[in-house]
Amino acid sequence: MKNDLQMPFQTLRWQGGIDGSLVLLDQRTLPGQVCDLICTTVEETAEAIRTLAVRGAPAIGVAAAYGLCLGLQTAGTDEPLDKGLEQLQADMVTLGRSRPTAVNLFWAMQRMCRCAEQCVRSHPGGIAGILRERLLSEAHAICAEDKDMCERIGRHGEPLIPDGGAILTHCNAGALATAGMGTALAPLYVARSKGRQFTVYVDETRPVLQGARLTAWELGQNGIQATLLCDTMAATLMKAGRIDAVIVGADRIAANGDTANKIGTLGLGIVAKEYGVSFYVAAPSSTFDLSLASGQEIPIEQRPGEEVRSFAGVSVAPEGIGVYNPAFDVTDADYITAIITEKGVLRPPLSKAIKDYLELK
Amino acid sequence: MKNDLQMPFQTLRWQGGIDGSLVLLDQRTLPGQVCDLICTTVEETAEAIRTLAVRGAPAIGVAAAYGLCLGLQTAGTDEPLDKGLEQLQADMVTLGRSRPTAVNLFWAMQRMCRCAEQCVRSHPGGIAGILRERLLSEAHAICAEDKDMCERIGRHGEPLIPDGGAILTHCNAGALATAGMGTALAPLYVARSKGRQFTVYVDETRPVLQGARLTAWELGQNGIQATLLCDTMAATLMKAGRIDAVIVGADRIAANGDTANKIGTLGLGIVAKEYGVSFYVAAPSSTFDLSLASGQEIPIEQRPGEEVRSFAGVSVAPEGIGVYNPAFDVTDADYITAIITEKGVLRPPLSKAIKDYLELK
Repeated sequence: MKNDLQMPFQTLRWQGGIDGSLVLLDQRTLPGQVCDLICTTVEETAEAIRTLAVRGAPAIGVAAAYGLCLGLQTAGTDEPLDKGLEQLQADMVTLGRSRPTAVNLFWAMQRMCRCAEQCVRSHPGGIAGILRERLLSEAHAICAEDKDMCERIGRHGEPLIPDGGAILTHCNAGALATAGMGTALAPLYVARSKGRQFTVYVDETRPVLQGARLTAWELGQNGIQATLLCDTMAATLMKAGRIDAVIVGADRIAANGDTANKIGTLGLGIVAKEYGVSFYVAAPSSTFDLSLASGQEIPIEQRPGEEVRSFAGVSVAPEGIGVYNPAFDVTDADYITAIITEKGVLRPPLSKAIKDYLELK
Repeated sequence: MKNDLQMPFQTLRWQGGIDGSLVLLDQRTLPGQVCDLICTTVEETAEAIRTLAVRGAPAIGVAAAYGLCLGLQTAGTDEPLDKGLEQLQADMVTLGRSRPTAVNLFWAMQRMCRCAEQCVRSHPGGIAGILRERLLSEAHAICAEDKDMCERIGRHGEPLIPDGGAILTHCNAGALATAGMGTALAPLYVARSKGRQFTVYVDETRPVLQGARLTAWELGQNGIQATLLCDTMAATLMKAGRIDAVIVGADRIAANGDTANKIGTLGLGIVAKEYGVSFYVAAPSSTFDLSLASGQEIPIEQRPGEEVRSFAGVSVAPEGIGVYNPAFDVTDADYITAIITEKGVLRPPLSKAIKDYLELK
């Protein structure tokens, strides 16, 4: 990666060797405070994922892979392999409960699991220390591939960013959502590295305000001009012809192209189609879940009502009022102009493009 | 009005006689604190309107009418009429700057102005005391008519509320936005008084959170079941078929039916049309501005960036980031199923219905 594409911060990293720890940039306190959160157990990792200290589908996958390494630290290095495998299975359950919608979480854990099975086959009667080394190296590989995936998405998506244009994004599918330079924001970083000028409109993204707190901060750290707006304001901007393209990330994409992403994405997709604004989804292949024929089958996480009833501890609604708080919605493939992946740009008909693309891998 | 349609609170009222004051239920501190704000000058009234202590197009109109009465208190009762008229003209400028989009503000002031001109004609060489009395009585009439208008809107809109149904509303076009029982919420209050059961989904309505703070509180005070959601969540509710109708208020309606209302209404209108959900606008005839052929001509108030950069007084975005913060958007007539007025329900083609309706007056 070129120097000008290095992010000025690190979303997550492994510190130390086999007995090391997972260091997360704690996203709960951004942009006011930039602090690291050090996870030393699988429970701390699950809690960090659940409470959004680390979020974004690709970053959750990498964090979960490292979390499984932390879990194995409780198995002594000279114990039998079985002990390590049992621990791994239990930890996958703990981590799997933290955020049910993000398929990357399960993808990363299944990959770690396959790696463990291979290790067992190669070392019958072996000791857990071998498994720990092998799995840490697999987690490092997942992390490195994530960085590479981001850059590839950036390079494929870059031609879609018009010089002098305006891009709208929702939530945070940037460097803070991955181990690399992001998914939805990667094409912007690559376009900027080539000298292209543009402005980015950032939906604040209620209830957790990932746009206001994270995307606005991240773009600012990278010297890209950003304008913040409430989610309610995107439609009137598009109507006025002030948006050239919408780019968002994805948490899970079904076989037909239906895309689960941060709540609010569906409304943006409908409005973009109404006004003829290009609507791009940027996501790595680990986001595709071909076991689901359509978005109707994607499980949608419901989050606590308190996220809507209050903010930063200040109550903004009558006490005890009922709340509807789904974390995600599903944008139908019909509203999507193209999906930007690390292998190329998929265009409609998306179900065929997705099938062809995944067979290419 | 029947007793069961009395609101358990008063949004605004005049206290005392000719030297009285305007008492507002201060909407800036709801729902946490229920306090009155007493305005004794026109400047205090303009400030209360500007800072949203009183808001909602009809309530702003009534408050402005009373504000002009407060302004006249500075002219002695035995001074010549000219002095009072000069004061009136100056105060109309002060109040007119407070919220430029709400046409009811100008409608109420013009009505007060016409009343003053009539008073001058009837009392050549008269004294300001006569004008003060005449204008206070006109303001009381505007207030009483506003209450009556709300009830009529309620009665015309009530048949549109399905028993066992679910209604979505945005912002607050309830009793807190009028001197009476509201515009968009009036059909709900009337339906409830007839024993109909339904649930109301309340958009929180960023940035000022009128839905979370005001509509949720107001419905609770009236014993109506409300569920709060972020503005981002309405699309997925409509897609799931869980909303029978959307009802919103209006700040200004052009001759063709294009409707300016709280930012976020346009997006709701587009999504409602996409999913075949009825989309109703409830507004009194003072909201129609036939001098404007279409919504493109409606001036849109831009509000301070700080409203978006912070949430409940807590900073949520990088300091100094640029903000786009229009207070209103314009929903095209095409997305509107019907406009509920105090004279009846107007259905498409709206430009013809509006013309016929206003000629009926």
